[in-house]
Amino acid sequence: MLLYDYFRSSAAFRVRIALALKGIAVERRFVHLLRGGGEQKQPDYLRRNPQGLVPALELDDGVVLTQSLAIIEYLEALKPEPRLIPDDPVCAAQSRAAALAIACDTHPLGNLRVVSYLETELHQGHDAIVNWRTHWATLGLAALEGLIRPAPFCFGREPNIADICLAPQVFYAERFGVPLDAFPKLRTVAAACAQHPAFVAAHPAAQPDADQAPGQAP
Amino acid sequence: MLLYDYFRSSAAFRVRIALALKGIAVERRFVHLLRGGGEQKQPDYLRRNPQGLVPALELDDGVVLTQSLAIIEYLEALKPEPRLIPDDPVCAAQSRAAALAIACDTHPLGNLRVVSYLETELHQGHDAIVNWRTHWATLGLAALEGLIRPAPFCFGREPNIADICLAPQVFYAERFGVPLDAFPKLRTVAAACAQHPAFVAAHPAAQPDADQAPGQAP
Repeated sequence: MLLYDYFRSSAAFRVRIALALKGIAVERRFVHLLRGGGEQKQPDYLRRNPQGLVPALELDDGVVLTQSLAIIEYLEALKPEPRLIPDDPVCAAQSRAAALAIACDTHPLGNLRVVSYLETELHQGHDAIVNWRTHWATLGLAALEGLIRPAPFCFGREPNIADICLAPQVFYAERFGVPLDAFPKLRTVAAACAQHPAFVAAHPAAQPDADQAPGQAP
Repeated sequence: MLLYDYFRSSAAFRVRIALALKGIAVERRFVHLLRGGGEQKQPDYLRRNPQGLVPALELDDGVVLTQSLAIIEYLEALKPEPRLIPDDPVCAAQSRAAALAIACDTHPLGNLRVVSYLETELHQGHDAIVNWRTHWATLGLAALEGLIRPAPFCFGREPNIADICLAPQVFYAERFGVPLDAFPKLRTVAAACAQHPAFVAAHPAAQPDADQAPGQAP
């Protein structure tokens, strides 16, 4: 399998964590979201993922899977252990809900393409962008704080799909100076993730395409 | 089970379709998103769903499930037939990806709280809001057009989780005048959904809380 990846993408970070937790090795191709006007907008990439977003997972038969959470559910079916989604339907729903509170209601609002639209189409300046990022990130993290019950991971002693979404959102918060002081549960989980080998291996700073590119990637 | 519902919420509409497809009856309590400053922001509702969003599904033991896609996966576990997520892992990933392309990358950007922020915090006027809605809705629908293969539903002869997300987004597009002319596949699916009893029963116009309230609910 071949993962189309970008070190600083929250969604790609999620898939890297899931692959590391499952112990699944993949080839990688790096899609730089800022270089050359955005490699994700090139025809060659759009043929694989018409959304022009990373990540995408190309299977050995050429089929391309998109959307980080759909890819993670696929990996769960491919190699069920360790479980990333609990067996119990209520626990599964609560874990997926925490993941979706990030993936649907938080992360997309602070994404590169949205911030670019605010800057270029709505002519918003630095302060307005900072406020926008902080507002939605804080709202999302506050919601998550109400949904999880750390022990020390979001829903138990082992990380699951909720932690996989939480860690990249905490990375985003730290990167953009969004305070976590009001969220003790999140900080407990974030500390546990920071010690876990799969999260360490998947961290943006540990990726071969990590660079010092300026600008505001997602 | 008790569904916290609002007729015009895309996310609640998804859960209503899933319940209708599965033939699962629930009690309902209506949470009016505009009345009284938003009933979803009242302490009584926030105790159930700290995100302050609809829908939420309260189980008979009092546990509350949130996030429409997590609720739909729960319903799938509760009553597996008819399948809303294909058995085949690749088909499942493709169906979930189409659903997530709407639920993560399209719907949240045109949601009530985001449009309210643009109006009140960023002082955007009518035209800018129309452009914002049209831009993200069109981008999302174009992505979906590239992800589905109607027959006549998104991925086959029966509707699944992708159709459940598509129909409310088409309703949103029609409501806000976003043209569908460039999307023949979406129009094929939308026509099939419009004929299907579960989609008809779940439609906003058919709900007991449907009203003529002014303003721009999600």
